[in-house]
Amino acid sequence: MSSETQLIARFFADLGAARTDVVLGIGDDAAVLRIAAGEDLVLTTDALVEGVHFLAGASAHSLGHRVLAVNLSDIAAMGATPTWALLALNLPRADEVWLGSFAAGFGQLARAHAVALVGGNVSRGPLSLTVAMAGTLPSGQGLRRDRARPGDALYVSGTVGDASAWLKCGRGDLTCSVRAAEFLQKRFEYPTPRMALGAGLLGLASACIDVSDGLYADAQRLLQAAGVGARIELPQLPVSWALRECLGDLAWQQALEGGEDYELCFTAPEARHEAIAALAAQTGTPVTQIGRIRDGTAIELVMDKSVMQFSPLGFDHFRS
Amino acid sequence: MSSETQLIARFFADLGAARTDVVLGIGDDAAVLRIAAGEDLVLTTDALVEGVHFLAGASAHSLGHRVLAVNLSDIAAMGATPTWALLALNLPRADEVWLGSFAAGFGQLARAHAVALVGGNVSRGPLSLTVAMAGTLPSGQGLRRDRARPGDALYVSGTVGDASAWLKCGRGDLTCSVRAAEFLQKRFEYPTPRMALGAGLLGLASACIDVSDGLYADAQRLLQAAGVGARIELPQLPVSWALRECLGDLAWQQALEGGEDYELCFTAPEARHEAIAALAAQTGTPVTQIGRIRDGTAIELVMDKSVMQFSPLGFDHFRS
Repeated sequence: MSSETQLIARFFADLGAARTDVVLGIGDDAAVLRIAAGEDLVLTTDALVEGVHFLAGASAHSLGHRVLAVNLSDIAAMGATPTWALLALNLPRADEVWLGSFAAGFGQLARAHAVALVGGNVSRGPLSLTVAMAGTLPSGQGLRRDRARPGDALYVSGTVGDASAWLKCGRGDLTCSVRAAEFLQKRFEYPTPRMALGAGLLGLASACIDVSDGLYADAQRLLQAAGVGARIELPQLPVSWALRECLGDLAWQQALEGGEDYELCFTAPEARHEAIAALAAQTGTPVTQIGRIRDGTAIELVMDKSVMQFSPLGFDHFRS
Repeated sequence: MSSETQLIARFFADLGAARTDVVLGIGDDAAVLRIAAGEDLVLTTDALVEGVHFLAGASAHSLGHRVLAVNLSDIAAMGATPTWALLALNLPRADEVWLGSFAAGFGQLARAHAVALVGGNVSRGPLSLTVAMAGTLPSGQGLRRDRARPGDALYVSGTVGDASAWLKCGRGDLTCSVRAAEFLQKRFEYPTPRMALGAGLLGLASACIDVSDGLYADAQRLLQAAGVGARIELPQLPVSWALRECLGDLAWQQALEGGEDYELCFTAPEARHEAIAALAAQTGTPVTQIGRIRDGTAIELVMDKSVMQFSPLGFDHFRS
């Protein structure tokens, strides 16, 4: 794009937070950043593609928020503190209204978490948004996926199932009140990365993963990484008033299967339950214990006195 | 893409070099990397989009090489040493032959420069490839664009104009011998990032930029950043035998205007000319002095006794 330099300068040069660890920001061949002694670097990348992660005509402001939020959520899941972002945009055309709105959504969330935008690239092409995100951690720490131990409690933050329920509403597969639909849409468009919770879990949690593909799928990854199983109490799944209003007694299925939540799923030894509760209160983050880690590799889903298992076709009664 | 995890595991988990500074690589929410005391972090991102940066049906092997090379070139232009890459792929479908070839091209160049692939994302979508690249630098060093001083010599590495000439051949706008066309195509598909030269220029060069949009455009950025001008000797522009064979006496125009070169354009005080020549010899990198930095902001292009200036319509005689 011939006007790439001007576009970057106009919309992205001062986007995000000012940070003293940025030695050289946007405008050179690469950014130069300083990492404090005793800190490790954390890096991740995630993308949003039109027609896959959002529909044509989606709010540019929400896309700016969301593409940063999904990357911040990965940083939170490591217990790291976010620092710098790179943004690669493929745009079908240089639409200044769109860019202004996108930059506003991105910049607002970036400033809220002290993230500096230190590099970017704009290409002509079908709309897609890619962020690479950096953070820092005290050396040798970091919340890995693979350290859950039998006996640990299993937790999830916030509520799950809301974002995916809104996608069902949008497709006409689910009918909701206007008020509930608005709530679910906001949960999809403006996910809340759980930065304070993630950082606070360092030294408390034994394992952590961000919930992007659905609680069941991501919890399964966490369990498989450690070679352990779990018992999940379905009535304990944290479900919003809106999801319950829309789906009633089947809300738990959406909570388990739905994606795009960007909550944290984590484990901790039982002795730390009070500390976890205090962290939740201190950071203003809802945290719910939904089960317990067990020996073996099975995931038992318990509803009343029924034990179910998940299959690609849905949830089947396994034994009663 | 539901099979994202398997695709990443199969093609990308062991791609690139093994590095001892990778505390935690692909497979968790984010990678954890260690930076040595006294080093700064360097970050950049660049993308290749089908239909813009390459045509449908382009060799997957060359795309793997090229998307890494264009990012490495930005790292080289900072004088930094490359360390870790993140790869975000938008793929229309999970084509395993394509992925295997792409991974081979990417992995070969990554290993050659000791780059570890530490994270990735695969989305369904129109084909585009985005890399975010990290490197390290001794703290407080780094080759900026904006430090050229009047009197400095102006250099460029390798030859320029080849890659863009091949695009003209492909469009039928330029006729070449088969042998010349093959040479130009290889220069386009397999650019050589000038890593050893870039790192060696730390402490020698006063300013440096990578030549991606064409020598004239990028030299102009380097000059504007420092508020200086230059006199460029057109007969000195380094032109390959193939470009000269195709374009004869007009090769200098392609050398000046063409993009996709991924060479380094840099400046250094005249007293360092011998040291620059020694570095070029030691790293096996052709380096050519093409002009000199001057006061003011004009770029004088000198051919024999003519002085020309560049305009969007081409090169016009300015005065003789």
